[in-house]
Amino acid sequence: MKFNAVKGMRDFYPEEMRLRNYILDAWRRVSLRNGFEEYDAPILESLELFTVKSGEEIAEQLFSLTDRGGRNLAIRPEITPSLARMVAAKINALPRPIKWFSLPRLCRAERPQRGRLREFFQWNIDVIGVESVQADAECIFTLVDFLREVGFSPDDVKVRVGSRPVVMSLLKREGVTEEGMDKALLALDKRPKIPAEAFEAMLREIGMADSSISGIGDFLDTPSDEIVPRIAQSGLSGAEKDIEDLRELETVLTAMGVKDYIAFDLHIVRGLAYYTGVVYEAIAEGERALAGGGRYDNLLEIVGGPACGATGFGMGDVVLGLLLTETGKIPAGCLKGTLEYFVIDAEDGTFETVLEIVSKLRGKGASAEYGFKRQGVGRQLKEADRRGAKHAVLVQKGGLAVKTLATGEQTEMSVAAFMKTMES
Amino acid sequence: MKFNAVKGMRDFYPEEMRLRNYILDAWRRVSLRNGFEEYDAPILESLELFTVKSGEEIAEQLFSLTDRGGRNLAIRPEITPSLARMVAAKINALPRPIKWFSLPRLCRAERPQRGRLREFFQWNIDVIGVESVQADAECIFTLVDFLREVGFSPDDVKVRVGSRPVVMSLLKREGVTEEGMDKALLALDKRPKIPAEAFEAMLREIGMADSSISGIGDFLDTPSDEIVPRIAQSGLSGAEKDIEDLRELETVLTAMGVKDYIAFDLHIVRGLAYYTGVVYEAIAEGERALAGGGRYDNLLEIVGGPACGATGFGMGDVVLGLLLTETGKIPAGCLKGTLEYFVIDAEDGTFETVLEIVSKLRGKGASAEYGFKRQGVGRQLKEADRRGAKHAVLVQKGGLAVKTLATGEQTEMSVAAFMKTMES
Repeated sequence: MKFNAVKGMRDFYPEEMRLRNYILDAWRRVSLRNGFEEYDAPILESLELFTVKSGEEIAEQLFSLTDRGGRNLAIRPEITPSLARMVAAKINALPRPIKWFSLPRLCRAERPQRGRLREFFQWNIDVIGVESVQADAECIFTLVDFLREVGFSPDDVKVRVGSRPVVMSLLKREGVTEEGMDKALLALDKRPKIPAEAFEAMLREIGMADSSISGIGDFLDTPSDEIVPRIAQSGLSGAEKDIEDLRELETVLTAMGVKDYIAFDLHIVRGLAYYTGVVYEAIAEGERALAGGGRYDNLLEIVGGPACGATGFGMGDVVLGLLLTETGKIPAGCLKGTLEYFVIDAEDGTFETVLEIVSKLRGKGASAEYGFKRQGVGRQLKEADRRGAKHAVLVQKGGLAVKTLATGEQTEMSVAAFMKTMES
Repeated sequence: MKFNAVKGMRDFYPEEMRLRNYILDAWRRVSLRNGFEEYDAPILESLELFTVKSGEEIAEQLFSLTDRGGRNLAIRPEITPSLARMVAAKINALPRPIKWFSLPRLCRAERPQRGRLREFFQWNIDVIGVESVQADAECIFTLVDFLREVGFSPDDVKVRVGSRPVVMSLLKREGVTEEGMDKALLALDKRPKIPAEAFEAMLREIGMADSSISGIGDFLDTPSDEIVPRIAQSGLSGAEKDIEDLRELETVLTAMGVKDYIAFDLHIVRGLAYYTGVVYEAIAEGERALAGGGRYDNLLEIVGGPACGATGFGMGDVVLGLLLTETGKIPAGCLKGTLEYFVIDAEDGTFETVLEIVSKLRGKGASAEYGFKRQGVGRQLKEADRRGAKHAVLVQKGGLAVKTLATGEQTEMSVAAFMKTMES
């Protein structure tokens, strides 16, 4: 009998686990220093919680089941519905702003492909209870703070920022009807990846005039730095607050010193219909999206809660892991096991002292190890080396030697003196 | 519409999440310093992986589903089968000893009750590829190292250690047949929780003579310290190596200074038939089991792998969390949010400087926060306090003051000087 991991899901042997922990630790560290608090929800939720947000079609992409009580459940494909449920349940008890993050394990019953697996982890950052664009700026800053933390420069990854209401006003002015809006947004989203003719054909299909299409194209191609001023001067009606928001967003991110990571880009509209304001994606070379998010003020209403400002983003571990690995950004040694001390009985009759020293070191918080087999010093040193030990402690009856494996440097002292160094 | 968490599963609001992280961080820290490496597997596995280990009956306790490819899958109720699968797949490539740990999220479709939920986390420690009892000692030491780490004394929690083969030899000598063995072991397991008559009735049912029953009872009641010598003198045949193992286990754990946490106790047999040697449980007041484990040398064979020594234990987060909370062992402040700096615009026109300082602090790895609302200093200080900030930074045009909130102590300096302190 031979068992394999479920298709599209990963086994994390220690080396892969270290990469996963490197990513999750950085997510957590950056979240906490940016003032976000961690939350989580069960991995199983009512199936209906997902269909009410994303429509019945989503059920096909879920691992769902019926429990013995006849309840329809599903493994979460995202945590946002759980977040909405949890916040809505305590909305009056939670002090605002609600600045929360989570690192959920998620599953999607999709066809696996490069960068897309059926089980993955996702960093989620959300600010709830704040209508001001200040909250969007805070999420984007946190995103950039993470990019800096793992070593991505503005040349490696840019956060492309757009505004759904601004783009929709623009499209409306150019004659796009309510019915044509979704298709027009889709065309914008696709434009950077398809030939110009295909883009134009999509807009012609919903009845746009050629002059409007070229006007839109021209507007979209405005250099990133000129977009906000150009929108401000465009006299677009019905999006005055959203235009002001983009301006304020730029001011805050400039004051916070991360403007070089930001590129305003009206192609960014995000597929999901529920975004209601600023939207953004972190995009690396090859148009690979590392993260995406934006404002979705109707979030709580979807689960029966009150109207409430909400904004946030998600970043998965799969594309990120590939990119960090390809670009050599994983710090040297971070994928290797490490150990502070490997303790060796360098003379017969000292094994009990080895055990005593190992116990003391661990009790003091130092990582310490010893070999289960009683064998020669050479073989034990070899094991110490394989385990990535910094120091070998060679115990003899008369005393011990602490050897730094990288340099070969060796200090001799009595067992009692070594124990004493541990007490300080 | 109102959604709730699935029955028997927990929402982790920030406070509950901090308790969960306190526990998981301690598990990880103790594992690493004891030389274990972390691994994980997908949360979904083939249903058959679980039934081949535990029998078809287990299926009733699982959340199982059929995917679109017709595969029968289940959410893992334990990680040991995944461990066996992963190790068996790479058995020739993995250097031994394999000392691995994991902190899996697990689900069981059981009826929820106090201390038993349908979703939980479990610490798993395993040593694979070592036949020697040294490996069992290493697992037990690591268990005790954790108990010490979270503040349990030997009076709070004892690790009760038994030996299945020793007990089985003893029962055999007293006339228990192969067929009666499982019932006899069950009776031993229950003895501390049931009246003497019930215990005796269970053994009588499988045909044991009254004299044998009282002999067994007498043996079981041997004080913990005398058990190992008494077994050694008992002349039990067929368990010589296992008796020697108990002796060596005692020697190692004594040398490592944790003997006071250990109580030898032959009642401990563990329910699962697959244990083949030393078995143990960490038991707190009220006979509550915090952890359980032992040697199961047939682990890899179950999934079609080779014969291979294996030993380990599991500890869940639910009973542990209750016990830590009840006994007041959670360190003060660990369940509260903390923040190093809360930066305040104490004069109009300084908000951009606030943003700049916050950005710099975060970039240096310090946690820093500011209020989204532009409001008076008093209200901002209140928010700083609510967020658990250690310091408030009050920014004015001429300079700033760093105020330590616990003492009210205040130091004034220029913005440039404060920025400089961050660079060191």
